[in-house]
Amino acid sequence: MKNYIKEDETLDDLQNGYSLIQKKDGFRFGVDAVLLADFANVKSTSKVIDIGTGTGIIPILLYARNKPKSIVGIEIQSDMAEMAARSILYNKLENAIEIRNMDLKEASSILGKSEFDVVVSNPPYVKQEAGINNPDMKKAIARFELMCTLEDVVQSAKDLLKTGGKLFMVHRSDRLVDIIYTMRDLGMEPKRIRFVHSAYSKRPHLVLIEGVRGGKAELKFMDPLYIYDDKGLYTDEINRIYGREK
Amino acid sequence: MKNYIKEDETLDDLQNGYSLIQKKDGFRFGVDAVLLADFANVKSTSKVIDIGTGTGIIPILLYARNKPKSIVGIEIQSDMAEMAARSILYNKLENAIEIRNMDLKEASSILGKSEFDVVVSNPPYVKQEAGINNPDMKKAIARFELMCTLEDVVQSAKDLLKTGGKLFMVHRSDRLVDIIYTMRDLGMEPKRIRFVHSAYSKRPHLVLIEGVRGGKAELKFMDPLYIYDDKGLYTDEINRIYGREK
Repeated sequence: MKNYIKEDETLDDLQNGYSLIQKKDGFRFGVDAVLLADFANVKSTSKVIDIGTGTGIIPILLYARNKPKSIVGIEIQSDMAEMAARSILYNKLENAIEIRNMDLKEASSILGKSEFDVVVSNPPYVKQEAGINNPDMKKAIARFELMCTLEDVVQSAKDLLKTGGKLFMVHRSDRLVDIIYTMRDLGMEPKRIRFVHSAYSKRPHLVLIEGVRGGKAELKFMDPLYIYDDKGLYTDEINRIYGREK
Repeated sequence: MKNYIKEDETLDDLQNGYSLIQKKDGFRFGVDAVLLADFANVKSTSKVIDIGTGTGIIPILLYARNKPKSIVGIEIQSDMAEMAARSILYNKLENAIEIRNMDLKEASSILGKSEFDVVVSNPPYVKQEAGINNPDMKKAIARFELMCTLEDVVQSAKDLLKTGGKLFMVHRSDRLVDIIYTMRDLGMEPKRIRFVHSAYSKRPHLVLIEGVRGGKAELKFMDPLYIYDDKGLYTDEINRIYGREK
């Protein structure tokens, strides 16, 4: 299988029967992608799209959990999309997951409006109003709102979703006001929120949020998700999400 | 002092040197008022107004903590305002706190626009779109959005505040989307959020939120506030807020 993996890449076992190709020095997936895959309510009948799929981690995690009807992952960076497509081939998932190299702002005009039941997204977290000096542009595009803003992500999700379709997103909690305002403003009503805290005593640093296209105002909070317990060990829930036995 | 208290009322010791008159069967203050007084960042130079003051609990708690320059409490129900005014007289705080019987929607036209540094509010929590059958109308007005909506509260706060002035509000967390959307929409930028959970493992049920008139987007979360610890006892922080020694 060696020809699937390039010299500057690693092949990482996802502990769910699948593996992921990542750049040694590039943007590597984190706990946020894993938590999003757990949070997303995807059914076996769902047509799913991941907007800004990066390495393709979220489509693979969702497929392993839910075997949805179809998954498309779109990615604006052509070399990332190419690497994600190789991960799909390596895992022999080419009949379940399609990786497409495109800008999420053009996704609905290429793939069709109101075509999907579920959109998932782990978008760039950091608002970028000024120029950026990050020498590693590929990493920067995944972290900063250089190629797309939060508004672009939510608008794209809305255009891709059927009425009643769901967006599941993970983001930094300090963007909560922007997220909630933008979602309601664009007609993607926030319906479910789960905060993620590193520990009981700490403020939440991530937020998992579900929005429904054309949904009525009715918000539900989930119990908080803690990464570490008070002994500094992973909580039972994190072990469950990662599929680890205690 | 017996003439201050009516037969259907109680006099309750606030454990801070002051007492509060409340109806035996009416709306009695809860932990939310106490948490709001702790959350509100009131200075000795602040001109403060409490919109929808009810029994007058929040002005008395704020005075005991911060001795601000002046506090006005406004209340739409005339008998509640009269009872709150008696609590102020009973505590000999008439030079520090003024209770006025008025609708918060008219407050800025009576008291002046952009006159205040701080607005505090513990408004009715429950959206009321249909009619209400609650036989106790006085309690219902404190709980349901019968006399004012969330939009009215935020708009009134904005009109009363100087530019840069702060609104501190406590509300039910399931109204978070409405709160955030309305605050940003009306130019009261949400800047600080603290969630209140009954216990570590439970979803937040209350939210404490600070908005700044004309503020720029910059949200900070505080560490969560838990009411009970895992033994079912009040947490150290609740004991601190209530002024109890451990």
